[in-house]
Amino acid sequence: MTADGLASWNDTATRAAIVDFVARVTTEGGPDFVPPSERIATFDNDGTLWCEKPLYVQADFILRKWRAMAEADASLAQEQPYKAVVEDDRAWLGALTDHVPELVQGVSEAFGGLTTEAFEAEAVEFFENVRHPTLGVAYTEAVYAPMRELLAFLESHEFRVFICSGGGRDFIRPVSERIYGIPRERVIGSSAPLELREGALVRTAGVEQPIDDGPGKPVHIWARTGRRPLLAGGNADGDVEMLAHSRFALLVHHDDADREFAYTSGAEKSLEAAAAHGWTVVSMRDDWATVFA
Amino acid sequence: MTADGLASWNDTATRAAIVDFVARVTTEGGPDFVPPSERIATFDNDGTLWCEKPLYVQADFILRKWRAMAEADASLAQEQPYKAVVEDDRAWLGALTDHVPELVQGVSEAFGGLTTEAFEAEAVEFFENVRHPTLGVAYTEAVYAPMRELLAFLESHEFRVFICSGGGRDFIRPVSERIYGIPRERVIGSSAPLELREGALVRTAGVEQPIDDGPGKPVHIWARTGRRPLLAGGNADGDVEMLAHSRFALLVHHDDADREFAYTSGAEKSLEAAAAHGWTVVSMRDDWATVFA
Repeated sequence: MTADGLASWNDTATRAAIVDFVARVTTEGGPDFVPPSERIATFDNDGTLWCEKPLYVQADFILRKWRAMAEADASLAQEQPYKAVVEDDRAWLGALTDHVPELVQGVSEAFGGLTTEAFEAEAVEFFENVRHPTLGVAYTEAVYAPMRELLAFLESHEFRVFICSGGGRDFIRPVSERIYGIPRERVIGSSAPLELREGALVRTAGVEQPIDDGPGKPVHIWARTGRRPLLAGGNADGDVEMLAHSRFALLVHHDDADREFAYTSGAEKSLEAAAAHGWTVVSMRDDWATVFA
Repeated sequence: MTADGLASWNDTATRAAIVDFVARVTTEGGPDFVPPSERIATFDNDGTLWCEKPLYVQADFILRKWRAMAEADASLAQEQPYKAVVEDDRAWLGALTDHVPELVQGVSEAFGGLTTEAFEAEAVEFFENVRHPTLGVAYTEAVYAPMRELLAFLESHEFRVFICSGGGRDFIRPVSERIYGIPRERVIGSSAPLELREGALVRTAGVEQPIDDGPGKPVHIWARTGRRPLLAGGNADGDVEMLAHSRFALLVHHDDADREFAYTSGAEKSLEAAAAHGWTVVSMRDDWATVFA
């Protein structure tokens, strides 16, 4: 098997490991052959398929909405999370895990009661109008070209590729087909609980459990596919369980300060697990000829 | 468009309505054209794709498990639902909605703690060994040949077909590809909540909410596909919301006592809704040349 279609990858051991694995599971009669029906691949989104720094794309979407709400109703500026947004209190906003109740409450106030169509319209407007704060391109162009090629490479070898994001399923769906070639029915992610009201699907308060992160990822993947991933890709600690649940695990390591960002924060456990289990680690600096298309 | 592939259907207005709808949404440049990416079809399972009388297939599976549990542990025979099974108390077992807590508790005791693999092995063993009580064939052969043809007809016109069952998602998955040509990732249904334990997915107690019935069906369909169905098929009151949520609604009416069963119980509201909204009603007696292959 050749690496046709993987032009943004350098000719390194990483690319060879991927191509070799795909060759083994698609070689009919070979000892590792897997029939096409069982070829499921799952990829985390933030930091794996598109850039997640300096902030999650969806965080930018939510913060803008909170700011607009606080501008429309000054009394909100006294309460969290609106207060932190109005005062640009990055310490408060950065300590996500310390403020889960306020953040979930804020998200419920911002988007609860919206129909799925109305929520999608807000997401589409965001993607059309907002640019990445440092890269200067639309967020939909802050996609890693080598990963986009890998998704197509897998599809061309009869894998069905799913996104499996800790972030919002319905936030990614409006753009997944265009930017990744992944149809909306193959986007897995977290969501507000939905309810049918007078024929419309409406977002309610809170978050559906389990969220699609950490141990929730294999649960969501099973619910959606009825399988373990044959191949999975991630970049952070929330991906460890999904990667451990797959046959071939790919971990994207952000070590390219010149072309993207260099960080290991939030990926410490996944890098340790990769070393312990022999997962294939992608060095953005060394393995990728191009980062963004 | 011809009705090629629908050989088990009589040449009636019902078949013509289906073929006409598919022709309209697949005619490029026509006023009703729908691109392939948006062509999602969803079908209820029990009573729509396979026979649900004299009892739900999965009910037989569960009752057999309860009987085996009561045989292995005599003390269980004093408690519901085991008592009703041991005493063959059909009145108690038939009044499902009056005994939801006992039934859910019994299902949790029967299958809670099983891994998804162990549960699947029990389902596979059931399908291999148990025959339909009156038709005398394996349950996997108690499939409606005209519906099987319709699924293939839709697939051949670039629809993606999903099962959307009020019953157990993971109960149907082991046979969906073989008997319907529907891969397991396109089976939507109800489920026990799953939990990741030491790398395995384990069934826990209770039922994930909402169950995939009634108003839960459009919620599950959105979660799984991000769309409304372009075409949906059902046969009972639990399908009304799904059918109302679709562009083209097909309601299977069980009016063939000779070849299958004749009943309207549990379908009263769906038949009323069909009349009110002009849904296409399939008469098994008049519209089907063959019922079972």
